[in-house]
Amino acid sequence: MTLKIGLVGLGKIAVDQHIPAIRGNKGLELVAGCSPASAPDGILRYPDMGAMLAAHPEIQAVSICTPPQVRHQLAGEAIAAGKHVFLEKPPAATVGEAASIAAMAAQRGVTALAGWHSRFAPGVESARNWMLARPIKSIKIRWKENVRQWHPGQKWIFEAGGMGVFDPGINALSILTRLLGGYALVRKASLQVPSNCSAPIRADLDMVSEHGVAIDAEFDFLQLGQQTWSIFVESEAGDTMALHLGGRTMEVNGKVVLDEPEREYPSMYEHFLGLVASGRSDVDLSPLQAVADAFLVGKLSSVEPYYE
Amino acid sequence: MTLKIGLVGLGKIAVDQHIPAIRGNKGLELVAGCSPASAPDGILRYPDMGAMLAAHPEIQAVSICTPPQVRHQLAGEAIAAGKHVFLEKPPAATVGEAASIAAMAAQRGVTALAGWHSRFAPGVESARNWMLARPIKSIKIRWKENVRQWHPGQKWIFEAGGMGVFDPGINALSILTRLLGGYALVRKASLQVPSNCSAPIRADLDMVSEHGVAIDAEFDFLQLGQQTWSIFVESEAGDTMALHLGGRTMEVNGKVVLDEPEREYPSMYEHFLGLVASGRSDVDLSPLQAVADAFLVGKLSSVEPYYE
Repeated sequence: MTLKIGLVGLGKIAVDQHIPAIRGNKGLELVAGCSPASAPDGILRYPDMGAMLAAHPEIQAVSICTPPQVRHQLAGEAIAAGKHVFLEKPPAATVGEAASIAAMAAQRGVTALAGWHSRFAPGVESARNWMLARPIKSIKIRWKENVRQWHPGQKWIFEAGGMGVFDPGINALSILTRLLGGYALVRKASLQVPSNCSAPIRADLDMVSEHGVAIDAEFDFLQLGQQTWSIFVESEAGDTMALHLGGRTMEVNGKVVLDEPEREYPSMYEHFLGLVASGRSDVDLSPLQAVADAFLVGKLSSVEPYYE
Repeated sequence: MTLKIGLVGLGKIAVDQHIPAIRGNKGLELVAGCSPASAPDGILRYPDMGAMLAAHPEIQAVSICTPPQVRHQLAGEAIAAGKHVFLEKPPAATVGEAASIAAMAAQRGVTALAGWHSRFAPGVESARNWMLARPIKSIKIRWKENVRQWHPGQKWIFEAGGMGVFDPGINALSILTRLLGGYALVRKASLQVPSNCSAPIRADLDMVSEHGVAIDAEFDFLQLGQQTWSIFVESEAGDTMALHLGGRTMEVNGKVVLDEPEREYPSMYEHFLGLVASGRSDVDLSPLQAVADAFLVGKLSSVEPYYE
């Protein structure tokens, strides 16, 4: 028995990650895809989701890889048709929309997965176990990359709803909230918004866990030279643990204890299959909630305009 | 049997609303209050909540009327001490903090109430019943007041986390989400932020209900002349219903059908007593979520500086 999947949206993330991950899993079968534009070789394309589902009633689940702004509408239609839904990150444009998708899936009795891919980086579960074994004093996030290098041509990222530096930063927050097992409470936020943009290019967050652990986070989209995707944890006893390269390597007291190749999307699809098999959902709002709360309490400063 | 209450924060809202509402309810007894500043006549004052609760172990519930930034910490301490908590609006500075308070109360087995006072305006339940009786086409919110008239000296309102025009606007959103019985999903937001401030002075929201009803909202903090706190609803059949004066009067097809004196806080304390008696909580996140989501997707524009 395989789970028959339709892909909604055939852009870069679908081609780079979803298609290989689906094809690499014997429990999954990629039936077709839909996109108003073109399709990669070997994908049966329909112009929209309605046409795809009408032509292939055997599709049991859809992976929604469109821009976030249309995910709530599409997820609602898929759920109403009785399909399971796998949502690229962030699961929707707003927390309210994401909560609404979770409620619709629960009511219809189908599975929904908010695909926080960075949580499936190789070091994350080991880091979580390290933290569960001892009292934690503090956490630092340093997530610094060059937007011009990693996001060429993605103008939408600095538009309203594009989230700016939180587009990569939410990956760090998705790891953080997994490590905490709950919300990251935003106490203060400083947001630097280029004068010609609607979203921040740098952000500093002062947060606390629900158990009072202090968390400070720096997100920078103008990092030249060494790129940094690291989370540093210090225990009450003074031991240190760090995740680097977005969770691909883990250090304890300065020594590398884990260094594995990344297989985030294959792991996510294994998780999705497990959820479908057991009739459960996994729509964790906490990473997107931390971003929304940072905007809510953020102190804005206007900085020099950004031109790619 | 009366419920013995301690007041945390003795500022304007405590004096104007909480103290008279508690004194006017035979099921409640106001034991003491705390504030680092002064107390109104007839209130036994302590400098902080810890001192108040230590001196009066008979206190069963606290009403937290401090600025939002410290409510999560204080509510956590009160809940840990086994006290029920009544939270002024908004229940906390962020949605994450409010969710955390609800979780702590549930775990400790005490009652928490997020006091969305505008939901207790006389017309709200009648408006809700009118809407439940017919298919709804659209909703318009017009919430326009003069900040200089209603918020003199409240500099914090335009600081980070002060929410600007959403400070009154969240009252409209609390009525809206009660009328909808769920989330208001923010599709687009336009936020006008004075160049010397961190929070909007005008905001336009394009929203939709979970059932697809279109909602458009205009919030204006620079309204001169006629002040407006109104919600207009149109049914699919073309009938109209409106709430005016923040829900104190209700019109159907242009004719006033309800006009009653406001008693929001007395009604809220009756609700709080009912929750405590039945061991329930009522911490609805949806009004604050709509504001956070509006900041998340909002298109910012810088407008002329604001000086009181």
